[in-house]
Amino acid sequence: MKVALYPGTFDPITKGHLDVLHRASVLFDKVIVAVAQNDPKSPIFGLEKRIQLIRENIDTDRFEVLPLEGLVVEFAKKMGAQALIRGLRAISDFEYEFQMAQMNRNLDESIETIFLMPNEKYFYTSSALIKQVARYTEKDTHLVPDNVHAALKQKFHSSGNG
Amino acid sequence: MKVALYPGTFDPITKGHLDVLHRASVLFDKVIVAVAQNDPKSPIFGLEKRIQLIRENIDTDRFEVLPLEGLVVEFAKKMGAQALIRGLRAISDFEYEFQMAQMNRNLDESIETIFLMPNEKYFYTSSALIKQVARYTEKDTHLVPDNVHAALKQKFHSSGNG
Amino acid sequence: MKVALYPGTFDPITKGHLDVLHRASVLFDKVIVAVAQNDPKSPIFGLEKRIQLIRENIDTDRFEVLPLEGLVVEFAKKMGAQALIRGLRAISDFEYEFQMAQMNRNLDESIETIFLMPNEKYFYTSSALIKQVARYTEKDTHLVPDNVHAALKQKFHSSGNG
Amino acid sequence: MKVALYPGTFDPITKGHLDVLHRASVLFDKVIVAVAQNDPKSPIFGLEKRIQLIRENIDTDRFEVLPLEGLVVEFAKKMGAQALIRGLRAISDFEYEFQMAQMNRNLDESIETIFLMPNEKYFYTSSALIKQVARYTEKDTHLVPDNVHAALKQKFHSSGNG
Amino acid sequence: MKVALYPGTFDPITKGHLDVLHRASVLFDKVIVAVAQNDPKSPIFGLEKRIQLIRENIDTDRFEVLPLEGLVVEFAKKMGAQALIRGLRAISDFEYEFQMAQMNRNLDESIETIFLMPNEKYFYTSSALIKQVARYTEKDTHLVPDNVHAALKQKFHSSGNG
Amino acid sequence: MKVALYPGTFDPITKGHLDVLHRASVLFDKVIVAVAQNDPKSPIFGLEKRIQLIRENIDTDRFEVLPLEGLVVEFAKKMGAQALIRGLRAISDFEYEFQMAQMNRNLDESIETIFLMPNEKYFYTSSALIKQVARYTEKDTHLVPDNVHAALKQKFHSSGNG
Repeated sequence: MKVALYPGTFDPITKGHLDVLHRASVLFDKVIVAVAQNDPKSPIFGLEKRIQLIRENIDTDRFEVLPLEGLVVEFAKKMGAQALIRGLRAISDFEYEFQMAQMNRNLDESIETIFLMPNEKYFYTSSALIKQVARYTEKDTHLVPDNVHAALKQKFHSSGNG
Repeated sequence: MKVALYPGTFDPITKGHLDVLHRASVLFDKVIVAVAQNDPKSPIFGLEKRIQLIRENIDTDRFEVLPLEGLVVEFAKKMGAQALIRGLRAISDFEYEFQMAQMNRNLDESIETIFLMPNEKYFYTSSALIKQVARYTEKDTHLVPDNVHAALKQKFHSSGNG
Repeated sequence: MKVALYPGTFDPITKGHLDVLHRASVLFDKVIVAVAQNDPKSPIFGLEKRIQLIRENIDTDRFEVLPLEGLVVEFAKKMGAQALIRGLRAISDFEYEFQMAQMNRNLDESIETIFLMPNEKYFYTSSALIKQVARYTEKDTHLVPDNVHAALKQKFHSSGNG
Repeated sequence: MKVALYPGTFDPITKGHLDVLHRASVLFDKVIVAVAQNDPKSPIFGLEKRIQLIRENIDTDRFEVLPLEGLVVEFAKKMGAQALIRGLRAISDFEYEFQMAQMNRNLDESIETIFLMPNEKYFYTSSALIKQVARYTEKDTHLVPDNVHAALKQKFHSSGNG
Repeated sequence: MKVALYPGTFDPITKGHLDVLHRASVLFDKVIVAVAQNDPKSPIFGLEKRIQLIRENIDTDRFEVLPLEGLVVEFAKKMGAQALIRGLRAISDFEYEFQMAQMNRNLDESIETIFLMPNEKYFYTSSALIKQVARYTEKDTHLVPDNVHAALKQKFHSSGNG
Repeated sequence: MKVALYPGTFDPITKGHLDVLHRASVLFDKVIVAVAQNDPKSPIFGLEKRIQLIRENIDTDRFEVLPLEGLVVEFAKKMGAQALIRGLRAISDFEYEFQMAQMNRNLDESIETIFLMPNEKYFYTSSALIKQVARYTEKDTHLVPDNVHAALKQKFHSSGNG
């Protein structure tokens, strides 16, 4: 069985992430989304919430969503994955992604990193920019799924929000 | 009347920004400089000071300098602007700028982003690097206007500076 | 009156070019498409044909399509244009475009080059790639207008084509 | 069965290509190397020779080497492949590859392009540069397999070579 | 005597840095490693420790390791250096490095910045990524010298580490 | 004695090349300009003419201008050079230059490639673009020395030019 791990912070998941996820599912028998717990970027959504927002957008049992524990390559190995999935969007990505991929090879040569190109609609989508915009507007950017749009509105624009 | 909005933090304004501003003024009847108030980058100069440092370098009534309120595209629309102006300097810029431009299109298709190339003298000028250097030296880098050079000296090297 | 010149070989015109053209027309009173005659790239369509393929996709009198004569900046000046329009798609573009823009400034400082971002659907569209594909298939790539698709089929797949 | 197609001119095959090929074989049940016949780049080795040079470096029946006929996506479909394999080396690659991948998606959405990162030793290896160097020296660059090195010597430095 | 200054934070020194250092030593009579004291990046190792980790990897008197005081170009001049050495690894580097080099030229035209390409093994090595990985594993990435690997283990995985 | 080789086609030499040459001369005791004879790019000026155009812009005996014979690294070694000099201008350069540098290292590890940044005025100057423009105008682009400007005029605009 061919298994792939798709690691990330997913704070929150975007349509770009989901696009990559569905492309990966054509190539692998199973795709595990591994959600990083403690991120230096200080996620705005807690780990449980981020996992829930992903699960609500996934409809088959070919996907699994789990908290990422420890080093990515070690977690991949433990889960029986042969590959890491990464979406490749733009130049800055490219550098960071190659750096990560080379490091992961140095740590464990048996795990291959494969890069998929999202739909061009999501080529310049990033969770960071989406959060930045959500602070200023309740408008739908059409770059996140509906449940995430609702969660962002709740986060930044609900009456109880300090 | 063709109106353009030039948004940014301008902490502080550089000769690169001024170069872009003057190029834009040839193409538009009016150019509004929109200064972002609360920036995640924690500006070293307050909003009022940043606006003043820009105004002192502007001599005609074809320019206006205003605090940016809310979302850039909404502010542009409110001010009657058809276009956003961005200076395009270098590769990292390019990615960030395209990401912003795509997001702004998703929010409001009627506002076009146009990119202008500053004079090559300012191709590698950034406010961030200028501030970094100003901490270590009172030397003039010739990359900021005189009033900004004076303000940086005052900020980092005046006797009362802790 | 604000006039812009959009120079190129347009061999053939793509939906990406048309997208840039319509964006420019919002910002300028008139946009002149200037079609380069003798190109080192050896165009597959003659100058007259390339001009015709553009004109058939243009419906208002705010556009004009003309053969480009001599140096771009000199032609722009002769036609009363203040700006050159360029679509900015991707990294390799970026370098070439900046080189051209700097050269044009060295030749005539009064003509400004402005860059517009096409719709992301056309971010990776190039006339060269379209021609390469058209040799192998009659399929519609949805990246050129209908008349160009027909012209490419005629060129590469009509019975009389050796 | 998961099948991938690895298309290219392979004029000649390099250790970088072979590295990508072996990485792909871990992820797919079968990898078909599809060698382009008539290339605008005017290959120095004929199609048969290029195929032979690849076959001599392949030892299992999980690989197949075939002449590429017609459009890449159509050939992939005919051969039962779900994916195209591309090695991603450097910036200029990146642009060209994304352009090709987007075009291939426009032609057939069911074929996914996946990118693999070769070993860093081959990050800057290109067939073009290898041929350029082989004209001037018989030295082994260690960037091509032995049979290719011999073929290049034969091509450029054998006594009968005019 | 040709003297070069190699400035940086070196938190900690990597095999990539050492590779650049040895390449520079072939071209210059003396190479001074200048270690930045107070870095906005908040180094995990103190200045003394970072200097010691470098010195332990240097065996000839053609190298000197010193704390960097004040502005880089002024320190270079004071130390009799004609050149600054920078390792050039990847795209993001490229932009940042050119920005720094241009700024340093604006501050002192007599100091030239020269760029050296490290071995490709270290093309994607960064101190930041090495620290990030060291938090999660005691594995040797083979990207830092032995004494640094030991220091990282001590830092992140010794029993007394809270 | 520290000797550097600066290889290229120099068809024709630009102010960007001269800028790099003078920067190199501060760092090396001697700089040899090695002019490639038979270039795939089909130079418009013959080898002798290209050498003469360089020599006329060089005033001290610290420079030497010679035809490049055979492989660059072998010629460098024969001439007693420890380094190859390359000007690094822009992204497309960067890729090509790193590819060449890695190849040259594979051929001879003892020759180091060093990169220098030209003055920003020449960041986007290329011989190819200069020739392209010279066909259309006698204007001085200020990007080549006077003797080259005269030679280009003679080439493309003299009455006897077929």
